Amino acid sequence: MGMWFEDFIVGEMFETVARTVTEADVVTFSGLSGDMHPLHTDAEYAKATPFGQRVVHGALVLSLAVGLRGRTGRFDDTLIAFLEIRSWQFRRPVFIGDTVHARNEVVEARASSKPGRGVVVQRVEVVNQEGEVVQSGDMVTLVRQRP
Amino acid sequence: MGMWFEDFIVGEMFETVARTVTEADVVTFSGLSGDMHPLHTDAEYAKATPFGQRVVHGALVLSLAVGLRGRTGRFDDTLIAFLEIRSWQFRRPVFIGDTVHARNEVVEARASSKPGRGVVVQRVEVVNQEGEVVQSGDMVTLVRQRP
Amino acid sequence: MGMWFEDFIVGEMFETVARTVTEADVVTFSGLSGDMHPLHTDAEYAKATPFGQRVVHGALVLSLAVGLRGRTGRFDDTLIAFLEIRSWQFRRPVFIGDTVHARNEVVEARASSKPGRGVVVQRVEVVNQEGEVVQSGDMVTLVRQRP
Amino acid sequence: MGMWFEDFIVGEMFETVARTVTEADVVTFSGLSGDMHPLHTDAEYAKATPFGQRVVHGALVLSLAVGLRGRTGRFDDTLIAFLEIRSWQFRRPVFIGDTVHARNEVVEARASSKPGRGVVVQRVEVVNQEGEVVQSGDMVTLVRQRP
Amino acid sequence: MGMWFEDFIVGEMFETVARTVTEADVVTFSGLSGDMHPLHTDAEYAKATPFGQRVVHGALVLSLAVGLRGRTGRFDDTLIAFLEIRSWQFRRPVFIGDTVHARNEVVEARASSKPGRGVVVQRVEVVNQEGEVVQSGDMVTLVRQRP
Amino acid sequence: MGMWFEDFIVGEMFETVARTVTEADVVTFSGLSGDMHPLHTDAEYAKATPFGQRVVHGALVLSLAVGLRGRTGRFDDTLIAFLEIRSWQFRRPVFIGDTVHARNEVVEARASSKPGRGVVVQRVEVVNQEGEVVQSGDMVTLVRQRP
Repeated sequence: MGMWFEDFIVGEMFETVARTVTEADVVTFSGLSGDMHPLHTDAEYAKATPFGQRVVHGALVLSLAVGLRGRTGRFDDTLIAFLEIRSWQFRRPVFIGDTVHARNEVVEARASSKPGRGVVVQRVEVVNQEGEVVQSGDMVTLVRQRP
Repeated sequence: MGMWFEDFIVGEMFETVARTVTEADVVTFSGLSGDMHPLHTDAEYAKATPFGQRVVHGALVLSLAVGLRGRTGRFDDTLIAFLEIRSWQFRRPVFIGDTVHARNEVVEARASSKPGRGVVVQRVEVVNQEGEVVQSGDMVTLVRQRP
Repeated sequence: MGMWFEDFIVGEMFETVARTVTEADVVTFSGLSGDMHPLHTDAEYAKATPFGQRVVHGALVLSLAVGLRGRTGRFDDTLIAFLEIRSWQFRRPVFIGDTVHARNEVVEARASSKPGRGVVVQRVEVVNQEGEVVQSGDMVTLVRQRP
Repeated sequence: MGMWFEDFIVGEMFETVARTVTEADVVTFSGLSGDMHPLHTDAEYAKATPFGQRVVHGALVLSLAVGLRGRTGRFDDTLIAFLEIRSWQFRRPVFIGDTVHARNEVVEARASSKPGRGVVVQRVEVVNQEGEVVQSGDMVTLVRQRP
Repeated sequence: MGMWFEDFIVGEMFETVARTVTEADVVTFSGLSGDMHPLHTDAEYAKATPFGQRVVHGALVLSLAVGLRGRTGRFDDTLIAFLEIRSWQFRRPVFIGDTVHARNEVVEARASSKPGRGVVVQRVEVVNQEGEVVQSGDMVTLVRQRP
Repeated sequence: MGMWFEDFIVGEMFETVARTVTEADVVTFSGLSGDMHPLHTDAEYAKATPFGQRVVHGALVLSLAVGLRGRTGRFDDTLIAFLEIRSWQFRRPVFIGDTVHARNEVVEARASSKPGRGVVVQRVEVVNQEGEVVQSGDMVTLVRQRP
């Protein structure tokens, strides 16, 4: 099921399944990351901001995007390493109860100088249940060539 | 205790406290993000890779960097939004039991076109207990000006 | 407080206390088990199914039944091993917010071929707040005889 | 990627990826299920049993088997419901640090009396890193026919 | 199984079962409480203190004492409210891997001015696997009289 | 940022930031502490009590108070040990969704008999979003003198 370097064709897209971001996710991420900014953990404070309610941590949504991509199983045997995140923009707030998925487009695929591996750049957009792009940027991974 | 836009001077640095990344953190992050790649969750598989052991998720270390920055309380009342992560590079693996902290240098601070706010760019380096930089990149935030 | 093999009389019943299944339980179980089927984790997807909402994992409800039985403390010193689950049927969906408890009836108790121990079979029914049986089956345990 | 009823051929097998069971998993499951039997939560008590150490909850291993099967994504769009677990035997103890995966063989596949669906019975064996079968039994699911 | 006000006899004692405090417990409590003091979360920092290693949060051990008392089920139907904790002393550090239980002695039991209820004061000692008292103090509860 | 013994002036107060207590917090604390009293975990049971709904564990609110105090970072380098909690009263119930913070007043500060350290007693009040004191008592800590 894994995708080898040769399987990544520039211009091809895939979409992941979706996931609802729950209050429990936000609470767990606050504790795990240590980011307890009142915007995420204090409902009274959040009510008084322009958002009007608690906002999901940007880095949690980014982490969900990584996880949703991984859940496809495509990288289970073929990924060597996650190299870089480029120009990752937090474009719209995500709220508790929103459902997000990731849209992935191969924008670059080049063989590495080391044999047997290649660098794949994917343009990733995280999309909510309204079809709005909430985050986007490029994820760069190092992938095995087909043996 | 919060830092207003005016308090960010290009060239100034601060270091966060440190935190040990535990197996429990990796397990929680696997479940939270859904990223259960065998490199993170299967010790037998990981033993057979060049890493020789399970590797901490790159996005978890990034999240810890955000959290460690937040724990300073500097942004508690002054942060408006997290705008962007630029050129975030995963430079060295982090293993279970490593202790990381973040080094932050203000590299840009410019008033926003909207009044009362400014954009701050910080160069963030995540450093392990050996003093090695394991991840680095720029974090861009929107911060309130002093009222 | 523990129950020895001799204390299990065929036909006797006991009921456990009850517990409300929360969204946090479902989120934790998704991450712990790795079962992130959209029926459990994607509220938009679930809305479009005949269930109309997210469904609690069957294996979580089964695990709660085991835990509720254990909370009685009856097995704390007397249980040797959990041997088998027989004909465990998922009969009705459990939804977030439902409150379940377990009804246990001893249906078989026979001395083991090894001295000092016996096999106890209990018919377990998991019941929701409406009195409906949502799951049922037999749990077989190996229990110490009274010393 | 999903498997429709027609794709299940009696006699065909698939194996899941593997996962290491951590102390954190056991702790989380104790709290989630409420099963805090000293065999799982008291290292001193466990040391004095024939097992010599804490044992992973049987129902956690069963839950992991369900999750590992789900991670293949095969059931994401095609599963209607989990119907039954039959003759699930806890055959060998699983210890903290063990790595388990599931072996699945289709043993029965019959159309349902209701149109558009079928019942699939899979013989599931949970196998540890030594190749030993630690749990086994049948999982019965209701699956969509190809539209 | 519950204990009514009349069942509490001054001078009577009971001991709870024991529980091993794991690294996962400490990590979870750090995130839940927000107490991420480096003594609990930074193994390098802790190494350089007189303790020589990370110390379990005092409030976590106190919480475990409450939980271990509750696991007896004695209070399930009879507890009205937890009123007060008196003179709770943190006497010795608890380390990851220690196993603790609670020793409870009724030191006072008096009928309340309101009918049908009474106040019970218990002297609680938390004891580690070496038999050392690590914490102690009085817990005051409001309990129902036998109907 | 840390506060040394000399920085604690009797009569001085500080207030922490606030935090909303979520259902996820209550669920996690139930599992972590093992205190699964139906008042905290069974919504149907709780409905029938004078509280009319599930109540947050007293010891969780106490733990949050410790954590909120710690989040100020004041004790990061200067705290030697948490010595005692005195007369901690559970004065009003806290419900899921309430937002609490802690008010701290230095009521005693005396040099220790051992050089380089001092004992600080703070009167702590936990206050909800209505301004009501829900818990209060004294926290006694051992703090370093300025080097």
